Amino acid sequence: MTTADLLAGIEARRMPALARAISLVENGREGYEALLSSLHPRVGRAHRIGITGPPGAGKSTLAERLVQTYRAGGRTVAVVAVDPTSPFTGGALLGDRIRMESVALDPNVYIRSMATRGELGGVATTTREVCDVLDAFGFERILIETVGVGQSELTIAATADTAVLVLVPESGDGIQVLKAGVMEIADLYVINKADRPGADRLRTEIDVMLGIRRGNAFRHVAPHHRPTTPPPGKSVGEGAAPWEPPALAVSAVRNEGIDGLVAAIERHAEYLQRSGELSRRRRERLVRHTREVVDRGVRALVWEEGGGEAALRAGLERVAGGTVNPYKLAHEILAGVKKEMGNGHA
Amino acid sequence: MTTADLLAGIEARRMPALARAISLVENGREGYEALLSSLHPRVGRAHRIGITGPPGAGKSTLAERLVQTYRAGGRTVAVVAVDPTSPFTGGALLGDRIRMESVALDPNVYIRSMATRGELGGVATTTREVCDVLDAFGFERILIETVGVGQSELTIAATADTAVLVLVPESGDGIQVLKAGVMEIADLYVINKADRPGADRLRTEIDVMLGIRRGNAFRHVAPHHRPTTPPPGKSVGEGAAPWEPPALAVSAVRNEGIDGLVAAIERHAEYLQRSGELSRRRRERLVRHTREVVDRGVRALVWEEGGGEAALRAGLERVAGGTVNPYKLAHEILAGVKKEMGNGHA
Repeated sequence: MTTADLLAGIEARRMPALARAISLVENGREGYEALLSSLHPRVGRAHRIGITGPPGAGKSTLAERLVQTYRAGGRTVAVVAVDPTSPFTGGALLGDRIRMESVALDPNVYIRSMATRGELGGVATTTREVCDVLDAFGFERILIETVGVGQSELTIAATADTAVLVLVPESGDGIQVLKAGVMEIADLYVINKADRPGADRLRTEIDVMLGIRRGNAFRHVAPHHRPTTPPPGKSVGEGAAPWEPPALAVSAVRNEGIDGLVAAIERHAEYLQRSGELSRRRRERLVRHTREVVDRGVRALVWEEGGGEAALRAGLERVAGGTVNPYKLAHEILAGVKKEMGNGHA
Repeated sequence: MTTADLLAGIEARRMPALARAISLVENGREGYEALLSSLHPRVGRAHRIGITGPPGAGKSTLAERLVQTYRAGGRTVAVVAVDPTSPFTGGALLGDRIRMESVALDPNVYIRSMATRGELGGVATTTREVCDVLDAFGFERILIETVGVGQSELTIAATADTAVLVLVPESGDGIQVLKAGVMEIADLYVINKADRPGADRLRTEIDVMLGIRRGNAFRHVAPHHRPTTPPPGKSVGEGAAPWEPPALAVSAVRNEGIDGLVAAIERHAEYLQRSGELSRRRRERLVRHTREVVDRGVRALVWEEGGGEAALRAGLERVAGGTVNPYKLAHEILAGVKKEMGNGHA
């Protein structure tokens, strides 16, 4: 299938074309950047929702409930689950098959697991590009579910329009969750399994954290941008007030509180639109994305076209033997790449 | 202080020189690669121990106990705690000060918190280089404690000689922990807070996982490398058998089981040495490190020297305005960088 065929297939909303386009992008096969470049004008209509939280927080079940609710409202939904690649199994331990059985057969739901490729350092970039394909295809809501609560996962969550952090009463001490650095990126907090002991304590901890955050946030805002009165607790996203991340108690398993969560996500989407925050965020992401595409291109240039891989292999024995160190070898490789480029070979 | 002064200071084991050298490396200031290059011959004597686990698993307390035990045995120890940089506070929420009070005043203990710089993508590289400085200084044991259980944290843990995964009974369902992909990188499992309910279940889950892992591992081993009989459960690291990661029950708070953990870490160090695994791993890491130093150099070349930053800023309006897309702009920037290099300006 050529890029033109894929494009035509996506415009005609054909599922096999979508699946092929995503595979092309995910594996970085020839023509993937040309495809993304052609799809670019169609990108930007979907609302992207990142779902992050510690293992065991019930993110998958919550995502399934969100899909059900969106479908009941007539929305099309895609789910991208970013799973870690295991060095042993060579892929995700849980595949698509045992996920989301209740919605898997709905033709207006598309579910895709991505195995992350840690070495390439481009997981967030690839996730974003897969979402771009789904967006161009016409899905109205895209859920991006990450596994784990580390730096890479934060970077992935930051590609979404709305970041939802899922916590459970047994997530551990509040201060420990704070340490993980995930608290501050969220636009919405979900206390899942809210019927379990410790839910009240978790809410208090989130409130304390949000108080700290608000204090800090204001400190960095120019005086004329500060609201004259502190925004009242209930006026979520109203008027000129900044967005105040709400903390919502739900039980994904019991299907309680999901409508409220969907409503809060929609309110956040409206806030993003109205406040100009959506264009600001998307612009920022375009910059970051362009930067990453350049870095990826440069890496290909250096290692594949510029002879870097061969030079590394050749120099390796000397590094292992101690006659040269990694910094000197890197310097040699860089000099070689520059010379190659100067000769017009790369 | 010149690089020569820093080198002399490190050779004389002067603390102020160490602190300055680490700051130089951590912030990537001028001369840091020259310093690391000069220190390279002195690197490789320390045993590096990575400590990973979910928030709330008690990693800091465990690290403190390990430091106490190493000190009681007359070893010098350094601790590198990699904390996430918060976009709000601009740094780690918990500083060095409230950490490890019991050992902080010991001149043979060095504790350093590193704020990670997610954007630069080089957290693991920088962590490794900070450890290289500590290694060159002469610390015998280096503990690398990470926060969170994501991909970046795994990459950091992979720079250690021995990876310790700390779990607690309340870490969540076993399958969820498996999903986080951290289980399989560990050389040692620690069940912390082992007196709490659920510890037995956690041990069973680890055993099941290790059984799966072993099965898979053997599948990828050439027939003549396979042990003729399955290695018995107790013969950890003995003879020609592959290393079988033990699962150790401890209570860091109650100071129980720590001696056993230290002994297991030492057994793993001996196994690495005896089996040739240590040189294999270190060689692999040298390759990866050289690759990263080249990538970092290329990024500096493209964005700072090659005019990429200016070209990105200039092209941004067109991307925002929709007259060019990120892929086309990236292509333009790359072409410009290549031309610059060809002209001998970079």
